[in-house]
Amino acid sequence: MSSHFSIPDPKNNSIYLQRMSVQKEHRALKNDHKPCVIWLTGLSGSGKTSTADALEKKLHARGYKTYTLDGDNVRHGLNNDLGFTDADRVENIRRVAEVAKLMVDAGLIVITAFISPFISERGYARQILADNEFIEVFVDAPIEVCEARDPKGLYKKARSGQLKNFTGIDSEYQKPQNPEIVLESAKKNPEELADYVLEYMISKTKL
Amino acid sequence: MSSHFSIPDPKNNSIYLQRMSVQKEHRALKNDHKPCVIWLTGLSGSGKTSTADALEKKLHARGYKTYTLDGDNVRHGLNNDLGFTDADRVENIRRVAEVAKLMVDAGLIVITAFISPFISERGYARQILADNEFIEVFVDAPIEVCEARDPKGLYKKARSGQLKNFTGIDSEYQKPQNPEIVLESAKKNPEELADYVLEYMISKTKL
Repeated sequence: MSSHFSIPDPKNNSIYLQRMSVQKEHRALKNDHKPCVIWLTGLSGSGKTSTADALEKKLHARGYKTYTLDGDNVRHGLNNDLGFTDADRVENIRRVAEVAKLMVDAGLIVITAFISPFISERGYARQILADNEFIEVFVDAPIEVCEARDPKGLYKKARSGQLKNFTGIDSEYQKPQNPEIVLESAKKNPEELADYVLEYMISKTKL
Repeated sequence: MSSHFSIPDPKNNSIYLQRMSVQKEHRALKNDHKPCVIWLTGLSGSGKTSTADALEKKLHARGYKTYTLDGDNVRHGLNNDLGFTDADRVENIRRVAEVAKLMVDAGLIVITAFISPFISERGYARQILADNEFIEVFVDAPIEVCEARDPKGLYKKARSGQLKNFTGIDSEYQKPQNPEIVLESAKKNPEELADYVLEYMISKTKL
């Protein structure tokens, strides 16, 4: 059978699905590990970025192929047309989810570090990925702790009214209802939190 | 020196540049090859997808970490909010360039297969990537050959007026002025064209 064929897309006659020869399974085989998304969600200051950094270091040292998507590399490029209105924030996370999906197709373990406050947007990310490819990690610290840390000075700005629609202050954070992992990030350091995620990945997803 | 610090972004006080520990250089070292973008541009039917497919097979077989972005995996996900107006087509290619850049940061050799008819949009992709990371490949076949092939029946639809703004018919294709590679795709098969690109990559970019 040829590996190269076109399937008309019923939704749009000018787009065709064309199967490429090198597929996700082939990349996983060469990489010697499964791809997935480790989706970190939590308040600003809860420890998402430092946990992502510690986790990526551990995975990379073990030879896994990784990438971390965060506000730094996404907001300055792909999403530099988006602001901070509700609609733009939802579109921001939709694109992150879609890029994470492409990177999983490319064989990578993708770590995402975004507040991603809404159940619906995290649900979208889960829905477009295959079973066991989406690992939702609730980085859970009390807002008092996050606000005391305030690593970027954002809570201070939000309290003074300089920043509007700030999650936890005047915009809702919807806690995950059934996340794969909950990290009590006020009680542990990023190294310990990353170890916990790594153990989960090895035991549950047979990384 | 700590590998983990924040730099205020002068353009936006609520976005910070935060340096992650695992960087492009570390991924390149582990992958044992440099990342780059092989940007295929040319008319519909010129052979971009079949060349991309042949090239990715060859690279993958040699152990390189690859991904191909094309209308299939991009239009159905990340860019499913975009249509085919001029503005939407430009935004389509802008996002492809930005995702390719993220994937290069992730250590991959990215092949893109889009008509990408405008000099300005290909210039944007080149500009956001580092020197030697952007390899523009003009997949050059006479429009008569492309139209005779018409693998998706699109020229027929464009000629009959069912498709508007079709590149080469009622929308301009701006030929690359100084591409790294020109493939005369009417004269060679995809395997030969892919070999040509591969030889270039090995000799010029020290793949």
